[in-house]
Amino acid sequence: MSRILVINPNSNDAVTAGLDQALAPLRLAGGPVIDCIGLAEGPHGIETQAHIETVALPLARLVAEEEPRTDAFVIACYGDPGIHVCREATKKPVFGIAESGVLTALSRGERFGVIAISGKSIRRHLRYLRQLALDVRLAGERPLDMSVAESASGADTLERMIAVGTDLRDRDGADVVIMGCAGMAKHRAPLEDALGIPVIDPTQAAVTLAMGAIVFSAAHSG
Amino acid sequence: MSRILVINPNSNDAVTAGLDQALAPLRLAGGPVIDCIGLAEGPHGIETQAHIETVALPLARLVAEEEPRTDAFVIACYGDPGIHVCREATKKPVFGIAESGVLTALSRGERFGVIAISGKSIRRHLRYLRQLALDVRLAGERPLDMSVAESASGADTLERMIAVGTDLRDRDGADVVIMGCAGMAKHRAPLEDALGIPVIDPTQAAVTLAMGAIVFSAAHSG
Amino acid sequence: MSRILVINPNSNDAVTAGLDQALAPLRLAGGPVIDCIGLAEGPHGIETQAHIETVALPLARLVAEEEPRTDAFVIACYGDPGIHVCREATKKPVFGIAESGVLTALSRGERFGVIAISGKSIRRHLRYLRQLALDVRLAGERPLDMSVAESASGADTLERMIAVGTDLRDRDGADVVIMGCAGMAKHRAPLEDALGIPVIDPTQAAVTLAMGAIVFSAAHSG
Amino acid sequence: MSRILVINPNSNDAVTAGLDQALAPLRLAGGPVIDCIGLAEGPHGIETQAHIETVALPLARLVAEEEPRTDAFVIACYGDPGIHVCREATKKPVFGIAESGVLTALSRGERFGVIAISGKSIRRHLRYLRQLALDVRLAGERPLDMSVAESASGADTLERMIAVGTDLRDRDGADVVIMGCAGMAKHRAPLEDALGIPVIDPTQAAVTLAMGAIVFSAAHSG
Amino acid sequence: MSRILVINPNSNDAVTAGLDQALAPLRLAGGPVIDCIGLAEGPHGIETQAHIETVALPLARLVAEEEPRTDAFVIACYGDPGIHVCREATKKPVFGIAESGVLTALSRGERFGVIAISGKSIRRHLRYLRQLALDVRLAGERPLDMSVAESASGADTLERMIAVGTDLRDRDGADVVIMGCAGMAKHRAPLEDALGIPVIDPTQAAVTLAMGAIVFSAAHSG
Amino acid sequence: MSRILVINPNSNDAVTAGLDQALAPLRLAGGPVIDCIGLAEGPHGIETQAHIETVALPLARLVAEEEPRTDAFVIACYGDPGIHVCREATKKPVFGIAESGVLTALSRGERFGVIAISGKSIRRHLRYLRQLALDVRLAGERPLDMSVAESASGADTLERMIAVGTDLRDRDGADVVIMGCAGMAKHRAPLEDALGIPVIDPTQAAVTLAMGAIVFSAAHSG
Repeated sequence: MSRILVINPNSNDAVTAGLDQALAPLRLAGGPVIDCIGLAEGPHGIETQAHIETVALPLARLVAEEEPRTDAFVIACYGDPGIHVCREATKKPVFGIAESGVLTALSRGERFGVIAISGKSIRRHLRYLRQLALDVRLAGERPLDMSVAESASGADTLERMIAVGTDLRDRDGADVVIMGCAGMAKHRAPLEDALGIPVIDPTQAAVTLAMGAIVFSAAHSG
Repeated sequence: MSRILVINPNSNDAVTAGLDQALAPLRLAGGPVIDCIGLAEGPHGIETQAHIETVALPLARLVAEEEPRTDAFVIACYGDPGIHVCREATKKPVFGIAESGVLTALSRGERFGVIAISGKSIRRHLRYLRQLALDVRLAGERPLDMSVAESASGADTLERMIAVGTDLRDRDGADVVIMGCAGMAKHRAPLEDALGIPVIDPTQAAVTLAMGAIVFSAAHSG
Repeated sequence: MSRILVINPNSNDAVTAGLDQALAPLRLAGGPVIDCIGLAEGPHGIETQAHIETVALPLARLVAEEEPRTDAFVIACYGDPGIHVCREATKKPVFGIAESGVLTALSRGERFGVIAISGKSIRRHLRYLRQLALDVRLAGERPLDMSVAESASGADTLERMIAVGTDLRDRDGADVVIMGCAGMAKHRAPLEDALGIPVIDPTQAAVTLAMGAIVFSAAHSG
Repeated sequence: MSRILVINPNSNDAVTAGLDQALAPLRLAGGPVIDCIGLAEGPHGIETQAHIETVALPLARLVAEEEPRTDAFVIACYGDPGIHVCREATKKPVFGIAESGVLTALSRGERFGVIAISGKSIRRHLRYLRQLALDVRLAGERPLDMSVAESASGADTLERMIAVGTDLRDRDGADVVIMGCAGMAKHRAPLEDALGIPVIDPTQAAVTLAMGAIVFSAAHSG
Repeated sequence: MSRILVINPNSNDAVTAGLDQALAPLRLAGGPVIDCIGLAEGPHGIETQAHIETVALPLARLVAEEEPRTDAFVIACYGDPGIHVCREATKKPVFGIAESGVLTALSRGERFGVIAISGKSIRRHLRYLRQLALDVRLAGERPLDMSVAESASGADTLERMIAVGTDLRDRDGADVVIMGCAGMAKHRAPLEDALGIPVIDPTQAAVTLAMGAIVFSAAHSG
Repeated sequence: MSRILVINPNSNDAVTAGLDQALAPLRLAGGPVIDCIGLAEGPHGIETQAHIETVALPLARLVAEEEPRTDAFVIACYGDPGIHVCREATKKPVFGIAESGVLTALSRGERFGVIAISGKSIRRHLRYLRQLALDVRLAGERPLDMSVAESASGADTLERMIAVGTDLRDRDGADVVIMGCAGMAKHRAPLEDALGIPVIDPTQAAVTLAMGAIVFSAAHSG
């Protein structure tokens, strides 16, 4: 029985529970177990570069500890904190949700837009896209201008996402949109309906890629 | 019950059967049905640009016909023949295995290598990579210099793939390798063992992405 | 006596006649014959990806048939349908008018703008520019938002082209403009006068390149 | 009667005479007059950056003087000396043979190779290709390692060009080759025969583009 | 005692004096002498391509003459006239202020903006950025729309620079700004205070790089 | 009196002392104080991604603590560990030696080569160059294949550097070379003499840029 471990790098249990729920459709009989855990040492939300650095080594330690009973890892924060050190810590594949979200978006449209939680993260995201050499087909990134807390709880989060997604589609020319945060999965389907173009939840994208990376190997070695 | 339709654009039933077998690990209880069919109008193998053009419209017609009972399509020829006209023919997502193989490889390594069947297809593949804006992280592409028939039947195909893969890894600097053909799936695991770096079967990659594109929507609308 | 064959991939005789007329200035004594023909199997206008695919193989067959009495071919539809399969079908050079128009524009300005017939083709054109690795100096592409029929007959086509060209020049920074359609040649000179920057008719550009490709070889072998 | 003026920026009359002869096939009844002149102030050959700078202003002065009786200019030195100041000096189009050679090569193959006279010019050519944003499809550039004088007179120039062109084709993957010098036109056809891929003479390419730039306007205003 | 020679390629003594004053903070006991001279043959201001060409060879002659008593050269005109011919004329390092300004800006921010004197120079600057392969992180360039004379004397130059710098920061997303002219140094600090992001004077940037290029070698050979 | 603080992120005092000595030529009367300190929490050498992550937060804390008495910071490890979190921790400029080394090299040559300590770091360096969008002019990177300890002490380090530098120059086409490590400064001058092209010590490059960033502001506010 193979296992995918999804690690929410913050210590916000509500976010972890939300991830867990969002991944239910990929839990299939005979398929990999998908576990979601938070990072006890993590901050309540990851909003700064310092937050990103804070979680990198704890993530790598957790990955090393869990390796014997895990076949693939997902780091569930849009920004892929610690991705390189986690990859160094294990022979098993490690997926970041930002990287996975962009790669998946590129299979669904010509040019992708990104909905960011806050404007401050956009410069960081662009830098990361350049590192991945995946910036050419970026249509644009626009912020919700909400805190993580607001975006999680607020009743008008979906409304705001539709407004931002509409700008990405109509002003920037995006024909696929990525929700640039780990905690927005429940809005994916209604946002997609409202915009009329594919909307990618990056955690679902990463877990899908993780599944593909292990089911065929498991079949081979099983 | 959702369904992924994998279309082998050639009329070689052995290839279709091989695809079918290679995808078995993704057939999970409760998950999408994965059907593989060949294209009656297709040539025995797709080796030229004329072959590619020959199958484009028949693929689009097949996609349009199958749309009512299909949730996602995969065009299973490395070269993604007819991908744009198929996407125009349906609202359902359509995945090409070349595009999917490259995107998946980018989640597994810094720079990807490609094993091509024949040297003649390499120029075409490079052109397509530029179109996708995914050429920056290409380490190199090298041919097996075998016909499709030889590569399918030949006892020494794996040996030749290991030699070519070793060159991609050691001379070109690839840390992940894509098998640039629809009919090589059975060699994936032994090739990966021999090279010690991830090896991507592009059809498995595409069907995985297709699964991710539909299971979450199905859950939403179900 | 060498010969350039210009093939209008649609079956609209008025467009073919317009091409024929637009190329008259290149018909010089002692120079190549320039013939223009339509494609009987072609649609009345090429507006979709399906139209593009429909004409690819008929174009290749026509090219193969005409090869013995032709020295260079021009595919006269902005989108270069079938260009790769036509090149595979003959040893003689084959020019697409989109590719030729962009290359010629790059010899006349720093950044080029494109006037498209319809907004739907722009995404396709951008994809093609990436494939050619000629997208860096694109200033922008803007649509006329007219049907091919309207643009051909409408009295206010030139007026609309001037408005769109002005936006390309003043908002997007283009210093050369390509008319992104095979049927606009008669508007080239007045549009150029109105904008004050070079305007490229892509069919004239392609036939010019074709002429250069053959007159020197003809001199050599003659 | 329209006129193209080809300026050889050096004072070597043999080179000017060679250009004149190489362009004969484009002198057609009813077409533009094509005149070739040398630059009295120019050095015997252009081999250094100082040579390039030496000719820039004299070229611009000549262009300004000849403007009233000229419709298009060609600067016939691979390196396009003074191209920007010449363009500033006239409203008429000015073509550089390096730029024109590359643009024309891109219409004939996927990746172009360049045969340089000397290794010292290669770094300069690469810098210029980056400026033009036309470097992506460069397969490679290799030197003859001959002086301009040697390459002009030497009996074994063609032999050496075939050797270098073969390396460009077989080691670098070029499927079209540019002769990176103004004085090699007589070798174009035999080199093309030997290599089996298109060979571009850049002066012929530039004069062709110049012809295209004026014959249609002349027809309009005539 | 090592020496940096800063050459103002125009003959405007007020500009030369301004450069001299702006560099005072880098004149440190034990460090290199920093001399500023104008170019007698230069125009009063460099505003056209012809101006640029006019100064190239005189600059190279001056560099060659001064080489025996100079350790590094700076060409102090944003546009780097004659940079390549000057580098050819000496073994000593030669710095252009445009190149140095951009490189220095890239050490201070993610995306740089440029304040140009006039709109006419922007196209030239962009071409040069492409040549340097440093255009990817350009946020934008905007003109003051003043003559060199106005910008030097005008009381409202700073006010206008703040307005343009604010647009670069807020509309184009620049987080560092380069003053695209040799004569603006006195505005650097107040502009930086007003914008709240780093502002680069390109001459100061070039002289700094020149200092780094020689002090360590001088220590070695001294 | 302004101050530049150079932080060696490892705890190897010999390396810190070497940096201190290498920077002596920039300590000029009236200029900034240049202090070098090690990081007590750092590993003995930085060779893995885990080492990089280990020092990021301690570096940021040190930067925050030293900010009141520091005007510019330099992180002296080729790999720029913690650069983004340090920049977030202070308003003062922070320079990484890898970034500074590359920017400085781009002012001295057309294409730069990098001498890496070990082959394992090369992939990381390339990723970083892509992030900086400074990879286009990379000629190549080649390893010494020595441990940090060996390279520091070994008598044959210089000999090995000359061999690697020669390959970068002759095989890869580099005309400027960066020593990709903080501890090689003493080899800079002899290596430059041996290769005949500029050799950049990245720490010296970064401290030079730091000096330029503060001396002009200090003059303004002083």
